[in-house]
Amino acid sequence: MTSQQGSESSAASSQHDNGKFNRRPITPAAAQQKIAAYVQPATLEEVKLHEAGGRFLAQSVTAPHPYPHFRRSGMDGYALQAADLAQASSDHIVWLEVIDNIPCGYTPSHEITSGYAARIMTGAMVPDGADVVVMLEMTELRTEHGRTWVGIKRQVEQGKNITPIGLEVQEGDLLLQQGAQIGAGEISVLATFGVHTVPVYRKPRVAIFSTGTELLGVEEPIAPGKIRNSNSLMLAQQIAAAGGEPILLGAIEDKLELARTMMMNALEHYDLVVSSGGVSVGDYDIMGDLVRSGEVEMLFNKISMRPGSVTTGAVKDGKLLFALSGNPGACFVGCELLVRPTIRQMMGSQHDYLPQWQAELGREYVKINSFTRYVRGRLEMENGRLIAYPALLDESNVMVTIKDSDCLIVIPPTSEPLAAGTIVQILRLMDR
Amino acid sequence: MTSQQGSESSAASSQHDNGKFNRRPITPAAAQQKIAAYVQPATLEEVKLHEAGGRFLAQSVTAPHPYPHFRRSGMDGYALQAADLAQASSDHIVWLEVIDNIPCGYTPSHEITSGYAARIMTGAMVPDGADVVVMLEMTELRTEHGRTWVGIKRQVEQGKNITPIGLEVQEGDLLLQQGAQIGAGEISVLATFGVHTVPVYRKPRVAIFSTGTELLGVEEPIAPGKIRNSNSLMLAQQIAAAGGEPILLGAIEDKLELARTMMMNALEHYDLVVSSGGVSVGDYDIMGDLVRSGEVEMLFNKISMRPGSVTTGAVKDGKLLFALSGNPGACFVGCELLVRPTIRQMMGSQHDYLPQWQAELGREYVKINSFTRYVRGRLEMENGRLIAYPALLDESNVMVTIKDSDCLIVIPPTSEPLAAGTIVQILRLMDR
Repeated sequence: MTSQQGSESSAASSQHDNGKFNRRPITPAAAQQKIAAYVQPATLEEVKLHEAGGRFLAQSVTAPHPYPHFRRSGMDGYALQAADLAQASSDHIVWLEVIDNIPCGYTPSHEITSGYAARIMTGAMVPDGADVVVMLEMTELRTEHGRTWVGIKRQVEQGKNITPIGLEVQEGDLLLQQGAQIGAGEISVLATFGVHTVPVYRKPRVAIFSTGTELLGVEEPIAPGKIRNSNSLMLAQQIAAAGGEPILLGAIEDKLELARTMMMNALEHYDLVVSSGGVSVGDYDIMGDLVRSGEVEMLFNKISMRPGSVTTGAVKDGKLLFALSGNPGACFVGCELLVRPTIRQMMGSQHDYLPQWQAELGREYVKINSFTRYVRGRLEMENGRLIAYPALLDESNVMVTIKDSDCLIVIPPTSEPLAAGTIVQILRLMDR
Repeated sequence: MTSQQGSESSAASSQHDNGKFNRRPITPAAAQQKIAAYVQPATLEEVKLHEAGGRFLAQSVTAPHPYPHFRRSGMDGYALQAADLAQASSDHIVWLEVIDNIPCGYTPSHEITSGYAARIMTGAMVPDGADVVVMLEMTELRTEHGRTWVGIKRQVEQGKNITPIGLEVQEGDLLLQQGAQIGAGEISVLATFGVHTVPVYRKPRVAIFSTGTELLGVEEPIAPGKIRNSNSLMLAQQIAAAGGEPILLGAIEDKLELARTMMMNALEHYDLVVSSGGVSVGDYDIMGDLVRSGEVEMLFNKISMRPGSVTTGAVKDGKLLFALSGNPGACFVGCELLVRPTIRQMMGSQHDYLPQWQAELGREYVKINSFTRYVRGRLEMENGRLIAYPALLDESNVMVTIKDSDCLIVIPPTSEPLAAGTIVQILRLMDR
């Protein structure tokens, strides 16, 4: 756009020479692939099961025994042989002598043979010989001279109310796949099989800093021309939700030397580095300058997406660095699309990226762009249809709509407005 | 079902007299309402913003200043008066003297008057007098005798690239409502406005214990007739995910005195008590006996739902007690439907219950029941339609399917199987 007739000393031209305007965009998917190729899994640790919630299993787990591992009664009642009830009817009560009482957690004292029964509780171990449990409500009792008989006047099919060994799980069955995220259901399974510690990948320690002379600490009074460093705290929450351990390094002024020191220190001491700010085309594009200086290997410095096209990814000695836009909306999206999957990959997840669904666009979306837009949106279920409403203010620097979003609506490159009702892809935000 | 001709000494009849069979079921919604009437909010505490993730705001927050609080440049370029470009065209470059350079975070040194311009960065404060920012790419520079002029050959509309004061938020606007859950977006907003500590309700301390002589510790070797106490750890994960602080008190044998001591101790020391086991109709229904003994006020001891119909709720001295079924599936559902909302209400949430959506049933569901069934299921998006697949094994004691579920499919009382494709209500599980 700069005039070819302009002076040689034009600031714009000299920036052209720097390559600041000449960034080559790659697609969001290509950026994700480039990153994934450099992800190194975190080291392993063994954690107690009750502290493992949210982590990812580093090894598959198979069943060390069947479940149930004994024949389990599904009812309170009487364990006996079904054949003994062959003649039972409403006119004919069959009486069997009760020779045992088996509460939960006890083992039977007697094998059951024809003519005998054992009182048994729900969940207790069915005695050998018995092939049915008759529910308590179908029985009556008679006691004489210290001996007890149970009376039943119905036939009951063999096997009724007995859960066979291994019904749910056979010994050696795969219980949980490597990479499974550990939630309540996984804990239930692991605890059932006595797996009281689990191997997981460590939580990556993620250094966070912001760049910008305009930045105040969150606790500082507001001042003309200044804004508070909200991005660092927002990123910390996103990184914690992704499973990482956020380390807040604060904010630095727009000075290349400060940025170099901060970045090198962060790359040395932490597993992953995320910065916000200092990537836009301008006089103080310090993260850009740093990456271009060759001290780190640049993976990309432009992505064909809005917001956040000037996002930069780089690697040094196997550690990844993300320089996200300083605009809150762009910073948020960059973290969800790039940083979150990286953290999850480092932790061994098999489901790295935000889950993708389809929904109907809830209102017209008029912005057109040659890049893919990730528009913050809100999902509603209306008459069985999933509707995604784009936020009304969605400029990259509009921060107030982040909180009301539970999805990113993917607007592909288009030259036409999208009508309400159009089917769109949405990425579900998982921290809501 | 017991024969009217049975002996008076029948165990079943004597249990009838105890009221064990005569429980009056209330609906799940009625149970939730009864509980909600007894919930007492936790006490307040002030926490640092970066530690507030997942908590609920105890007070609404309004904006202490507008945002932006200064006229902000949306571009790198030059701030000037739009009227000065009235004659600009591709044939006529307008030259304005550059009298200031305003990086982000600095305040302008000069007011801009006709004939002058200031170099300005994206995000920097627009100087008084200027009413437009012309983007860098539309400009050229000329320097002579230490003075600098910027040349522009287009007209630009007034206001272009300047974000006015208060565009996003006016002073006094409601930023966040009391009860809002604090996620990344909320943190961004609060940090932007300098809210570095927030008032929240304390995390309730939730005592968890299991009852059952059959229970082994998770680390113990398996033994005939025994099972491991998986429910306590599963509940701990569910309670932590709901926002509570789980306190594991372990397992006790089926002895009324032990249960009484455990329950009374738990009610005295913690904010909420959740037990699993000891509620089914049987000889060892100790939690039922305890509640019937009058030491606590019973709210309900049967809910018209499957699994978990024998769930019991009670209150003592304003503290709530939930005695959930010992069956893993029933325990899981009871915690999601009753305990999770209670914890969130204690923490000041405005959205207590699992969010409800509609989906198509992914396969036929044949079980019929006079109670509402909460069937564990998995959501899939197929061709823009949300499909809910019921777990294949969904007996209340089948534990392996919990982990594969991300919703509960609500099957209303019905006497007919539900065909695949039927629209059903689903409750989204939020810990996945």
